[in-house]
Amino acid sequence: MLGNPYDRDCPTRQLLDRIGDQWTVLIVGALRAGPLRFTQVGKRVEGISQKVLTQTLRSLVRDGILVRTAYPVIPPRVEYELTPLGRDLAEPLDMLDRWARHHMDQVTAARAAFDAEHTPASA
Amino acid sequence: MLGNPYDRDCPTRQLLDRIGDQWTVLIVGALRAGPLRFTQVGKRVEGISQKVLTQTLRSLVRDGILVRTAYPVIPPRVEYELTPLGRDLAEPLDMLDRWARHHMDQVTAARAAFDAEHTPASA
Repeated sequence: MLGNPYDRDCPTRQLLDRIGDQWTVLIVGALRAGPLRFTQVGKRVEGISQKVLTQTLRSLVRDGILVRTAYPVIPPRVEYELTPLGRDLAEPLDMLDRWARHHMDQVTAARAAFDAEHTPASA
Repeated sequence: MLGNPYDRDCPTRQLLDRIGDQWTVLIVGALRAGPLRFTQVGKRVEGISQKVLTQTLRSLVRDGILVRTAYPVIPPRVEYELTPLGRDLAEPLDMLDRWARHHMDQVTAARAAFDAEHTPASA
């Protein structure tokens, strides 16, 4: 059965919120090239806090988007990798990433025009 | 020049956050079929508060995604419509919406498996 995120109680709305989250987009995008360790993900996604990184990775593992593998070595090594479901999600998220990269100039111009129109002349 | 949302200071990161927002996805999706009045958008996107609806519509107008038209009639009529930039954005957002609708079952199953593994047996 298909869900409908326009229904306030449908769980697809919460899922939509999760997958469109900027950290999800950036983490899933970073893992497209292959598995990464926790610290490597943190370096790719500049400025993400340890707390948000930990929480987001855990949520994505719980949702079946990523798989976490702990290797029994010293020092411990933990890697994150996209699951088949995650690789499927990576495609629409990559479109979103590319849209942002390619349309920033248009959005910036629109904001400048809006602000010029909505700022009092005396300001 | 293309931006890079992996850079913490690049404005594309904030744009990515904006366009992936659940309310953006639902509002832009609702307007794909044509212009709607404020109250009509609110009815389509069930459960959105007046405040969030007002703020999100204003942000989307400022970003050049929507155009707001006020008709000089009594009672006042205000309509929102996708701009060409907004219609371009509607495509990746529709993919995100459809992904959530079509993969909810897999995510739900993954969550149940994760929770079964991570819940203490005594709980």
